[in-house]
Amino acid sequence: MTAAEFLEPVQADLAAMEDFLAPELRPQERFLGEYLAHVSRYRGKRLRPALVFLVARSLGRVTPDHVRLAAVAELLHTATLVHDDILDAAAIRRGNPTAHTVFGTEQTVLLGDYLFARAYELACRGSEPEIAVFLARTAQAICVGEMLQIRNRGNLEIGEPDYFRIIEQKTAALYAACGFIGAHYGGGGPRESGAFSEFGRNVGIAFQIADDLLDLTGDERVLGKTLGTDVGNGKLTLPLIRMLEVLPAGERARVRQGLLRNGHDGHAGHDGPPGWRALLGSTGALDYAHSRAGDFVAAAKRAVGSLGAIPLRENLEAFADFVISRNA
Amino acid sequence: MTAAEFLEPVQADLAAMEDFLAPELRPQERFLGEYLAHVSRYRGKRLRPALVFLVARSLGRVTPDHVRLAAVAELLHTATLVHDDILDAAAIRRGNPTAHTVFGTEQTVLLGDYLFARAYELACRGSEPEIAVFLARTAQAICVGEMLQIRNRGNLEIGEPDYFRIIEQKTAALYAACGFIGAHYGGGGPRESGAFSEFGRNVGIAFQIADDLLDLTGDERVLGKTLGTDVGNGKLTLPLIRMLEVLPAGERARVRQGLLRNGHDGHAGHDGPPGWRALLGSTGALDYAHSRAGDFVAAAKRAVGSLGAIPLRENLEAFADFVISRNA
Repeated sequence: MTAAEFLEPVQADLAAMEDFLAPELRPQERFLGEYLAHVSRYRGKRLRPALVFLVARSLGRVTPDHVRLAAVAELLHTATLVHDDILDAAAIRRGNPTAHTVFGTEQTVLLGDYLFARAYELACRGSEPEIAVFLARTAQAICVGEMLQIRNRGNLEIGEPDYFRIIEQKTAALYAACGFIGAHYGGGGPRESGAFSEFGRNVGIAFQIADDLLDLTGDERVLGKTLGTDVGNGKLTLPLIRMLEVLPAGERARVRQGLLRNGHDGHAGHDGPPGWRALLGSTGALDYAHSRAGDFVAAAKRAVGSLGAIPLRENLEAFADFVISRNA
Repeated sequence: MTAAEFLEPVQADLAAMEDFLAPELRPQERFLGEYLAHVSRYRGKRLRPALVFLVARSLGRVTPDHVRLAAVAELLHTATLVHDDILDAAAIRRGNPTAHTVFGTEQTVLLGDYLFARAYELACRGSEPEIAVFLARTAQAICVGEMLQIRNRGNLEIGEPDYFRIIEQKTAALYAACGFIGAHYGGGGPRESGAFSEFGRNVGIAFQIADDLLDLTGDERVLGKTLGTDVGNGKLTLPLIRMLEVLPAGERARVRQGLLRNGHDGHAGHDGPPGWRALLGSTGALDYAHSRAGDFVAAAKRAVGSLGAIPLRENLEAFADFVISRNA
């Protein structure tokens, strides 16, 4: 199933979300409208809202709460991207110059704050305050995950458990929330909410592993964003962690030295220690990361499978496959 | 009435708020606890929570909602300070090094995001989602006010209407919200909510004018924060706007040139064009700004006065006087 195929049942829902968001993002101040129009171009496949709707359609109904909360998930995601690009000193996002390169760092910090505030405002408009609390907690998890990641920048001793603890919070928490919201407002009980939350969590982890792989091996022109920033920023992701783990001690020391020097330079886009790209392949580290991502996709499918023969199960499975097979 | 005197009736309420906040700000991750402990040292007189409680006590009752929402106001304020200090490149806040100088800019952007998320989480915990929506909108106003301010950096044509539009949003909106919340949960009807909202708004404007005056004329040792950043950052506040307005054309051009050069340098703490400090006095610009601040204090008192002989009226009036007489 292609992305167009598995997303087909929720295209109208995604359009409804855009219609819902459009007037919300038309502020009084013209300059702010310009900023918001710019970052709305970051929106790609809208995987998080699509997950909300796919789960809802699978359980049988899409409600106004789904539309509103899918919009909240997308706004929270956009707000974190806007701030992330500042932190990563990334210049390009979805083929567009990043907000901070156009509007300046200061305006972009505030723009992110504004987007967060809009997201929380929409989150509060429902009848269940617990859901708004839950989403605010999800946003906290994202922040904590990112803070942990930055704290570990240049930490060449970082291991897999640290890596997974970081990406569970910074990425998987929001996917899990989308699965939960889809089920909760779709008429699902605790069993469905739990299963789809677990589906989202595993998909989110797989997504992040794939994203980290793309940063190392992807094509900037296809992805439309600055790549190689992880190594340049001294950020060790799963392939690099694995590579260092399996290298013979002497070689490991040499590569670590190179990465360390790199980290001290602190310049994004630095090329890293000599030969490291070839080592990613020859040590099997890339294959290993792909295979780990596949494990999480399989776990996501098992979570859906636990609910038996439900509608759109194939679409949900294709969704899970997609997050690790995408090249953009 | 001294600050200790007018705050006396709400000291127990402020302590209750601290007790409420303490466990909320004890996160799982030790590093985050350290960050939060650092920024909690920014808390000074806690004027915004004090306003919530003074209004509530004036109307007769302090509820758990007051305690919770006063904490939200303080967290929102702290979050904006944390991000502001990055934007202003300020090094000192309340005698402590600012968060970004200790933890780095990236962690501090995320710490601000985390504090916002905590604030919204607490805002959503009540039974009235409209109040959480209202506070999220207040946060948006703060962001918009600050964005407008940054857009006008280096704009030497900025006039009083622009200045007031900026400070109404970036500062007065949160004070107005505190007045409203105090009245709304204190058993006040629309008349009381309106009057105390207006009280807060005027106090907030007066506070900001006084703050801008202190940036020009205050004592860093007494204030415990970096001063003179406004001129260094090309930010024209009321005294400078007035000074340029009343200067003879030739002199105005000379001073503007100096400020312009300054703005292009872009270095915080730059001394500004020669002689400008003396001009602030000799043109009457400082007196004018003091007098305008006094007008807003008077308007705040009229708003309270419209409610007749209410309890703690003197304390509320002393609160309004305090925001423009403080030297720290």
